[in-house]
Amino acid sequence: MERIRIKDLEYDKVSKISGFVEKLKDTKYMVFVILRDISGETQVSIDKATQSEMASEVLKAIEGSVVSFWGTLKKSDFVKKYGCEFLPERLQIESIAEPSPITEEANIDQKINYRWLDLRTKKNTLIFDVQTCLVNSFREFLLKKDFLEIHTPKLIGTASESGSDVFELKYFDRKAYLAQSPQFYKQMAMAAGFDRIFEVGPVFRAEKSYTNKHATEFTGFDLELSYIDDFYDVVKVEEEMLVYALRNVKEKYGDKIKELYGLDVVVPDKTFPIMKLADVYKELESRYGYKVPESELGDLTTEAEKLCKNLSQDMFGSEFLVVTDYSAEKRAFYHMRKNGVPQGYDLIWKGCEITTGAQREHRFNELRAQADEKGLAKDVEFYMQFFKNGCPPHGGFGLGVDRLTMILLGLSIKEVMFIFRGPNRLNP
Amino acid sequence: MERIRIKDLEYDKVSKISGFVEKLKDTKYMVFVILRDISGETQVSIDKATQSEMASEVLKAIEGSVVSFWGTLKKSDFVKKYGCEFLPERLQIESIAEPSPITEEANIDQKINYRWLDLRTKKNTLIFDVQTCLVNSFREFLLKKDFLEIHTPKLIGTASESGSDVFELKYFDRKAYLAQSPQFYKQMAMAAGFDRIFEVGPVFRAEKSYTNKHATEFTGFDLELSYIDDFYDVVKVEEEMLVYALRNVKEKYGDKIKELYGLDVVVPDKTFPIMKLADVYKELESRYGYKVPESELGDLTTEAEKLCKNLSQDMFGSEFLVVTDYSAEKRAFYHMRKNGVPQGYDLIWKGCEITTGAQREHRFNELRAQADEKGLAKDVEFYMQFFKNGCPPHGGFGLGVDRLTMILLGLSIKEVMFIFRGPNRLNP
Repeated sequence: MERIRIKDLEYDKVSKISGFVEKLKDTKYMVFVILRDISGETQVSIDKATQSEMASEVLKAIEGSVVSFWGTLKKSDFVKKYGCEFLPERLQIESIAEPSPITEEANIDQKINYRWLDLRTKKNTLIFDVQTCLVNSFREFLLKKDFLEIHTPKLIGTASESGSDVFELKYFDRKAYLAQSPQFYKQMAMAAGFDRIFEVGPVFRAEKSYTNKHATEFTGFDLELSYIDDFYDVVKVEEEMLVYALRNVKEKYGDKIKELYGLDVVVPDKTFPIMKLADVYKELESRYGYKVPESELGDLTTEAEKLCKNLSQDMFGSEFLVVTDYSAEKRAFYHMRKNGVPQGYDLIWKGCEITTGAQREHRFNELRAQADEKGLAKDVEFYMQFFKNGCPPHGGFGLGVDRLTMILLGLSIKEVMFIFRGPNRLNP
Repeated sequence: MERIRIKDLEYDKVSKISGFVEKLKDTKYMVFVILRDISGETQVSIDKATQSEMASEVLKAIEGSVVSFWGTLKKSDFVKKYGCEFLPERLQIESIAEPSPITEEANIDQKINYRWLDLRTKKNTLIFDVQTCLVNSFREFLLKKDFLEIHTPKLIGTASESGSDVFELKYFDRKAYLAQSPQFYKQMAMAAGFDRIFEVGPVFRAEKSYTNKHATEFTGFDLELSYIDDFYDVVKVEEEMLVYALRNVKEKYGDKIKELYGLDVVVPDKTFPIMKLADVYKELESRYGYKVPESELGDLTTEAEKLCKNLSQDMFGSEFLVVTDYSAEKRAFYHMRKNGVPQGYDLIWKGCEITTGAQREHRFNELRAQADEKGLAKDVEFYMQFFKNGCPPHGGFGLGVDRLTMILLGLSIKEVMFIFRGPNRLNP
């Protein structure tokens, strides 16, 4: 008999259920098992008088053990919490657990050591329901718009973008590097005439950051599209994609997120507000007395980023804020510039940057000048070739899937990743 | 005005189109441009008498250049190939190409050096249409069955599985390794109670293989599911998933594949035939005179694998063949065994292995014994912990996305990957 998920159980029908023993209660006449699978939980009630063998057998399956029961779900007024109980005819012990080495009071680092146990809670499972829904909604949205999905190499021959913060590895008798982003390759797809592409994959950053939002490896969602007029076309695609995904998440998991995390999923009902960086700083100073250090004027400081949560809410009633007009000095060389101003943006959600996007410089000479200016001419030589034989105007953005999930659920990056990777964390 | 894809052009309506100059023909009275975007191509006809400026301008845009035209599509009996022509009012040159450094006669290695040009053909673009459709069909199929999508770390602390064929990298002040597969982590998800998961991501193999089907980095499609009765449950999921995907591919791209590759997409109309390895060898000998070397009896040799193309066709009229009952010596330690026989399979498609799948050993003591037997106890210590605190019976498989696409289109791995990676290939 195929096992059925607990939430799909029907009354008075012989079924097989399997799951983890959540609680085991040995009373005078009965043994009660709270059995949980990913869909839900139920009480299994075993009568010691008539099922003595099963009762003594199941008591070996301490919390965390995995068991299967064949039996029938019955309505019951005595079981207040569930209004029903599962009456088993047969038990099969699948796996006996040792006592759990972690307690609920453990801190997140201790919990990650036993992540497979830490993830067993309803609250933590929901993270992956939500992330699955988010990412799949992105894809669904883009596939409808004729985007292609590509898989670009993570092993690369030259340290990309800047040379710093890149992992280096032995590649047979030479060196290779891990891609910090699919940036160069998604642009290559544009030169190849792919028109619109996206990629979901790991990106690697050899940064010694110990914040609650940085990781050395995380999942990037990257896209690139050709024949845009300007970077506002990129903003528009991102906005529509996010709204589409948030609507799906709210519909499917809004109630559960409210119940388990106490948070509302807000689906934006108007276009994302857009502000120039200089105007952001003006408003932050006049509203909240924040003064940016002179040296950081061309970039958004971490503190200013956080204050954008209030700013976008107060000025526009929006959780999102698109910030533009960063200084050329602070932006990548491949961002197109107009009168010296990079044609790109950061998207801030609830005071945290989730995206950098831009129109790219697709003209060979202009691109080479900008690479030279940053002293990168040699490092990016292979990339420059993509623009020699015709390349459509294009733009795109990269979005951190883990960071997005993190903000949606009000968690830290360590809590939200399947297994976090940081400078001191390579296990499990 | 937003540009419109060429295949979506309507007659007698002012539109903007953008694309690559495929051909440029300068005649006495007219300049003809064959303009191609990812959706198709059209002839743009410029009258030298009335549009002399545009005519001389466009002649700078040699083949491969990117241009935009505003104008109108008109029916025309004179343009035999298309039955219509695009009459432009305005031209914008987006990007002027240098002459292409590769010719059609170049071999695949030379072509990969300029992959962004090589990929511009209709034939090559179709690879990514098909792959996008395949992978998305897999996901669609699995999401309907409540699978979760996860993203497991590619940076790992210990050399996984065997210690050989693993890339090693500097990870701050210690060593890390690149995951050869998400095997251990997808099993961790089972111990975490995730029930059913899949992952699409890069896998890394430090193998000096120079065949037409091996790469050092490729895209893996991995899944794992709990509460199976035996490995035939895994075969069944894979079969249903592949049939679902092949049906979608045939429906969407069957005609194009036939036109450009001369191949039929065959959607299996019966269950995959299953044979024990020993029986495969018996049949290969009696039918084709193939005799397996004694030392390889427990495994499928490359030559036998190839012969399975005929065998599965001749015996069952099937492109697919599931081979079971490999020897324990030749299979991974984590495959469950019954009477010493690994409870797993390889799936052969048209004479090429695309999958290894199995029921996993989820019982701690049995698993430890099998790891010990292969001398792996120390290497897999972290992995063993997953099974100490309760783990559902489970199984799964891994499938190479590139290899699948390759077989579907009758190509080599170098031709089918966005950018191939091999022992001598890290660029572009």
